[in-house]
Formats: sequence, C-alpha cells, structure tokens
Amino acid sequence: MVAPIKRIALVGGTHGGELTGVFLVKKFQQSPHLIKRNGIETVTLLANEKAIGMGRRYIDTDLNRAFAAQDLENPQLMNYEQSIAKKIARQIGEEKIDFIIDLHSTTANMGLTIILSDSHPYLLQLAAYLTTINPKVKILQHLLNKDASYLRSLVELGITIEVGAVANGLLDAKLFQETEELIHATLDYLEADGKGQLAKVLANLEPGNSSFYRVLEKVDYPRNQQGEIEAMIHPQLQFQDYKPLHPGNPMFVGFDGKEIFYKGDKTVYPVFINEVAYYEKGIAMYFTEQCIKNNN
Amino acid sequence: MVAPIKRIALVGGTHGGELTGVFLVKKFQQSPHLIKRNGIETVTLLANEKAIGMGRRYIDTDLNRAFAAQDLENPQLMNYEQSIAKKIARQIGEEKIDFIIDLHSTTANMGLTIILSDSHPYLLQLAAYLTTINPKVKILQHLLNKDASYLRSLVELGITIEVGAVANGLLDAKLFQETEELIHATLDYLEADGKGQLAKVLANLEPGNSSFYRVLEKVDYPRNQQGEIEAMIHPQLQFQDYKPLHPGNPMFVGFDGKEIFYKGDKTVYPVFINEVAYYEKGIAMYFTEQCIKNNN
Repeated sequence: MVAPIKRIALVGGTHGGELTGVFLVKKFQQSPHLIKRNGIETVTLLANEKAIGMGRRYIDTDLNRAFAAQDLENPQLMNYEQSIAKKIARQIGEEKIDFIIDLHSTTANMGLTIILSDSHPYLLQLAAYLTTINPKVKILQHLLNKDASYLRSLVELGITIEVGAVANGLLDAKLFQETEELIHATLDYLEADGKGQLAKVLANLEPGNSSFYRVLEKVDYPRNQQGEIEAMIHPQLQFQDYKPLHPGNPMFVGFDGKEIFYKGDKTVYPVFINEVAYYEKGIAMYFTEQCIKNNN
Repeated sequence: MVAPIKRIALVGGTHGGELTGVFLVKKFQQSPHLIKRNGIETVTLLANEKAIGMGRRYIDTDLNRAFAAQDLENPQLMNYEQSIAKKIARQIGEEKIDFIIDLHSTTANMGLTIILSDSHPYLLQLAAYLTTINPKVKILQHLLNKDASYLRSLVELGITIEVGAVANGLLDAKLFQETEELIHATLDYLEADGKGQLAKVLANLEPGNSSFYRVLEKVDYPRNQQGEIEAMIHPQLQFQDYKPLHPGNPMFVGFDGKEIFYKGDKTVYPVFINEVAYYEKGIAMYFTEQCIKNNN
C-alpha cells in the first residue's frame, strides 16, 4: 500500500536541449488549471534553466547524474549543475514532494517510454495502465543502486518519461501531444487513487499480461586505443529499439563497411540505440530482457 | 564551357555537430587513396575544429555565414568563426581550389540534397547525374546574391551536400555510406570530364526531364511579441520535405492544439522543415517551386 500522492513535481529541462519537456512545463506554467487535480498539488520546474537558454544538454556536467546523496552533501562539488542539484534537492524536500515526473527526450527510437528505477508494484501498475493510453508506450525497468544519481531518485515514487526519436533542440508536435496525454493520464490515475476510485480507472485495463523490459547491461561502440569510435550502429539496428536482437545479427558497421555481429548466445532487446548524449558515456545501447507482469 | 577541375576542397565540420561530414573527412584523411583521381588533387579540411571538438554547431557565430567578401576583408571581425573564415578563405585561394564540396547534415528530412547556389549549367548537369546514383538525391537551387556568405561561395564551382533527417551529434551509418557514394560519384564525374570522357559517364543518364527545386522564400514560426515561438510544425508536415503543400493544408499547430493552415494560393514544396539550427534564424522552412530541366 502506498499513501495517497499529495504533491507532485513535474520537471522539464533536466537536459536543456530536450524541448518536449521544456515546452510542456512552460505550457502548464501559463495554464496551471490544466494540471489541477482534486487533492493533488503539482509543482512545475524547469530544472536546468541556463542549459535550456543555451540549447545544450548541460553547462558543466550532466545534471541528471548529480543527485547521488553523497554528492549532494559534498560542499566541494559546486560547478553549475552540482549547485543547482543541491538547490533542486532542497526544494523537493521543503515542498514535501512525494512523486516526480521527469520529462526527457532521446535521439533513440524509444517511442513513449516509462522508465521505472525500481520494481515498486505501485509504479508497475501505473505504467501498465499508461500502456493502455497509447500503444507506443513501453515500460523500461532500469534498477538503480542506492547511489542513484538521477533527479527522479530524490523521492521514492515517480517516473521518467523518455520520448523519441527526436533531435535535441527540436520540437516534434506529435511527441509533444502524446507526452501531454501521458501526463494527464498519470495525474488522473493518481487523483483517482487518492479518492479510492482506482478500480474504476483500472476497469479500462484489460486483464492479462503486460510486458516490460529490464536493463541487463550497457554496450559501448568499438573504439580505438585513443577512445575514438571505430564503428557506427548498423543500419539494420538503427531505430530498432525494443526489437529482438538475435545471436549473429549485425550490430555495428565500421567506417570501411566491415560489419560487426552480435556474439551473445541469447536474444536481447536493445534500447537507447545511438542516443547522442551517450557517445561520451561509452554507451552505444543498453541490452534489455523482455519480462511479463501478470496483471490478474 | 568550364576548364577542367584540377583542385577540389572536400570540407566537413563547417558545423561542428554535423558528424557525417566530419567522419567522412577523417576517413579520407586516414585513407587518402580513396579520393585519388587522375588529374585531380583533393584537399580535405575539417573547417571548424573547435566546434567539432565541443560537438556544437559553432562557438561564437555560424561559420557558414562568415564568408561574405566584405566581412573577410574587415579586420575588426575577429571572433572565433570570423577568424577561421579568413584563414580558410586564404587557404582556398593559396591552394588554387577550383571546386568545393561542403558536407552538411540537417534534422529536416532532406534525403540526399545537392544544393546549388547558382544556375550554372555545369553544376546542374553534375547534379542531374547524381540523381541517377541514388533515388534519394534531390537538387535544390538556392540562388545567392553577390554577398553570399557561405563557405561554398569562396569559389565559382561547387556543391553543398545536405543529408538528413539526422540529429546533430549522431552518426547514421546509412547516410554516411550514401554520402560517401555521392562524393565518389562526384569525383568520378569530374575526373571523366577532365579526361574528356564525360559522354561515357553521361550514357547512364537517361535522356528526359529532371526536376529540381528552387527556393522562393523563407517562412518563420508563429511567434509572440517576445519572439518566442507559439506553434510547432504540424505533424502532417513534419518530415514531408519536397512534398507538395497545397493551399489550405495544415502547417503549424499551437501548444494548445490550434491548427494553422497554409494561406497561399499556389502549391509549394517546403524544404528544411524544422531544421533545429534555423529556430534562431527565424526559419521554420523554405518554400520552393518545382522546376524541370530538359536534359535532351
């Protein structure tokens, strides 16, 4: 059982170039009645205003890796993002936020992904409900350890909404509208739960199995000794997020045309394939496994 | 008649985040035999190295608007891009470059676009030949005045290759390979012309009409009094570059869902729809007209 959600933080612009979230938050700041729900207060936040202004992911370091508890307590970490991480963490605490919705976008073909950072049954049920809103919704479970450094990890409950494929700095109207629908559905769900009326909402949820994807490992690009990438995502894998990658399937292609194949012995489901911001993090994609949640 | 091309500059990274050109030039710098042709010297150039290093379009100002003759002669214009524009212009002159191939990419769905900045018949014929290499090739005529500020405009002859849709900072293997094919086809064509063997190459070119697109005007986003955009490209127009836009068709959609329609009275063919770098330039797209060139 989860106590009813009372105070939500709806966050956009944790990464400055991810405009879907930025412009949705701006919209709700101009028309706050749109996100009003009975019994729930929703606070909006543009997280990295300087990066938003410059149209960049971050100024000094990735804000969405700056929320580890020990880093927030370390007074020596004071670059731009480290400073605003401390400010945001304080604000989330002072405002007694008990649910975070963090809005992101990606150059990978992630559709409308609900990222869950733990296996809390309350969040799995919410996410399963959201799959009924739009068939493009996928559930990605990315289990984090205690040192989780994401903004979302500031409170126990919440979701990250990750939409794509969309270039940084670009507003895609369809993804904007679909993301807005997911926000409304989430708020409606939490409102209904607070009123003890969740059963009515869940009547829409067909009984049966819903699938989700669990992150297994990250996979880097082939690189030379200087750390420069030596191959690109193979055309047959580009934009194929959540599709099965079978042993022997092509993964990369070198600049000389040489193909590199998947050498594992079991089928995996890659996600975040060719996300621009992950080149510097040493991530070409994540492998996931497909899991089934029994809804009955 | 055009004197045989002797010295070509193959340029990538005029915009730092446009990786297709950057990595193609790096490839050719490592394997210069690939771009060797009889009677032709091809010089490779990574134009904006600092922006490439930072994964950004530019540092201070857009390098590809820094080549107007009067700006190159103005010693007061010395920000980073203004300085390297002067250096590049000097190099192009000293090396007696007589043909420039400038490699670009775009978030608009431009396929493989050959941009011609004038109506030189030599270039139109080359571009018509390139349409036979790949059906994704389109010819865009963007006539420039004498104050043309593009790198390409440093010499009389040359082409800009503009490929997309691809996010900045992203390597798309298929576009990389297709762009490389176009470069090889261009070099082969210029080599054959130098040897007086163009007729043999053009035997592949089916006689008939080939179409190209001529830029008519730029169109901005709807904006409020503060200059902020008030609407997005309509989902029905997104990625529809080179497709006809008829009077009454939807063009934009507001953040509130309100649709804005094309009010012109003749069909146009929009290009560069939703190019990220053009938000700040006040360009949501260019309207073009479709033209027919008689090849017979």
